[in-house]
Amino acid sequence: MKNPPSIEELISALRCLPGVGAKSAQRMAFHLLQRDRPGAARLGSALTHVLEAVRHCQRCNSFAETDVCALCSSSQRDPSLLCVVETPADLMMLEQAQCYAGLYFVLMGRLSPLDGIGPKDISLDRMLQRASDGVVAEVVLATNFTNEGEATAHFIGEMLASRGIRVTRIARGLPVGGEIEHVDSGTLARAVIERRAV
Amino acid sequence: MKNPPSIEELISALRCLPGVGAKSAQRMAFHLLQRDRPGAARLGSALTHVLEAVRHCQRCNSFAETDVCALCSSSQRDPSLLCVVETPADLMMLEQAQCYAGLYFVLMGRLSPLDGIGPKDISLDRMLQRASDGVVAEVVLATNFTNEGEATAHFIGEMLASRGIRVTRIARGLPVGGEIEHVDSGTLARAVIERRAV
Repeated sequence: MKNPPSIEELISALRCLPGVGAKSAQRMAFHLLQRDRPGAARLGSALTHVLEAVRHCQRCNSFAETDVCALCSSSQRDPSLLCVVETPADLMMLEQAQCYAGLYFVLMGRLSPLDGIGPKDISLDRMLQRASDGVVAEVVLATNFTNEGEATAHFIGEMLASRGIRVTRIARGLPVGGEIEHVDSGTLARAVIERRAV
Repeated sequence: MKNPPSIEELISALRCLPGVGAKSAQRMAFHLLQRDRPGAARLGSALTHVLEAVRHCQRCNSFAETDVCALCSSSQRDPSLLCVVETPADLMMLEQAQCYAGLYFVLMGRLSPLDGIGPKDISLDRMLQRASDGVVAEVVLATNFTNEGEATAHFIGEMLASRGIRVTRIARGLPVGGEIEHVDSGTLARAVIERRAV
């Protein structure tokens, strides 16, 4: 006994969503059919529309519906600062933190030799071109503090070192509200090594 | 700083899926745009197609692409048995258990006065008509053992009592592999009360 083909296809298609397995895909499909057909129709057209509408911003490489995104077009931002992040989600987090008024470049990934992701796959040539526009005075590296994120930051640092652009890395240390008793020893060690004058 | 409108709409539309909050909806949207555009296109058309293709089987009320579903049309099933379940997911579970060869009626819900769900909302009139076709000799109540499922089973039992149809309820008790030491006391109490001769 199987579901009708169109439901099986929907269940199978829902599994392309991250974190959705066979059981939750079936639960989602039944929920949509049983309780939220308008929601299903809305999701269907949102998906179709987003694929037509969204491309990459020519300046920051993030998602945009225009050639240049709203943030890159803004006159409120400092064009001498360029922050390099892995994903649009990271960019959103930095914007939410309201701590940075410069511009961005989104790599849409990170260097990962094991997955076959090299410098070309994360648009490092475009990043370099962007950083070398003569206006950018500092590149802030805000890739993750994972092995791959660190390697990516190191690689970019080396690339830019010879070009007279100041390169900085966001700080590592204890989180705000963090207690020394409960923090992992790697983080604590970095916090001591990277201590600063008060 | 917000995402482009078509991405915000997609994030908002993804939240109609059960168990998907703001954060996972954004993760899903970025994942689809960044890594799985074919998957997004497939999901979009699966949603559109399923809404056109799927209706309710005229006999069992489950989802079907034809007036009468494959299970109801099968000559392999015993038409004298009618099992009443809450949802198509429950029907699938019973089929997977390979323990039942009769037909089904799917309520597509349960009685829930607090949510304003009464007998009309779960097609009890159609269920009654289906059970009174002269062929059905036993109605097996397989609603959940929740308060609402129990109330629904009780209500249906009363409805059918006067019509000379045998009504049974699936058994409660310890699960297969269950250990008395670890089972909740409610389940254990029912297992003692509903003990059977060996």
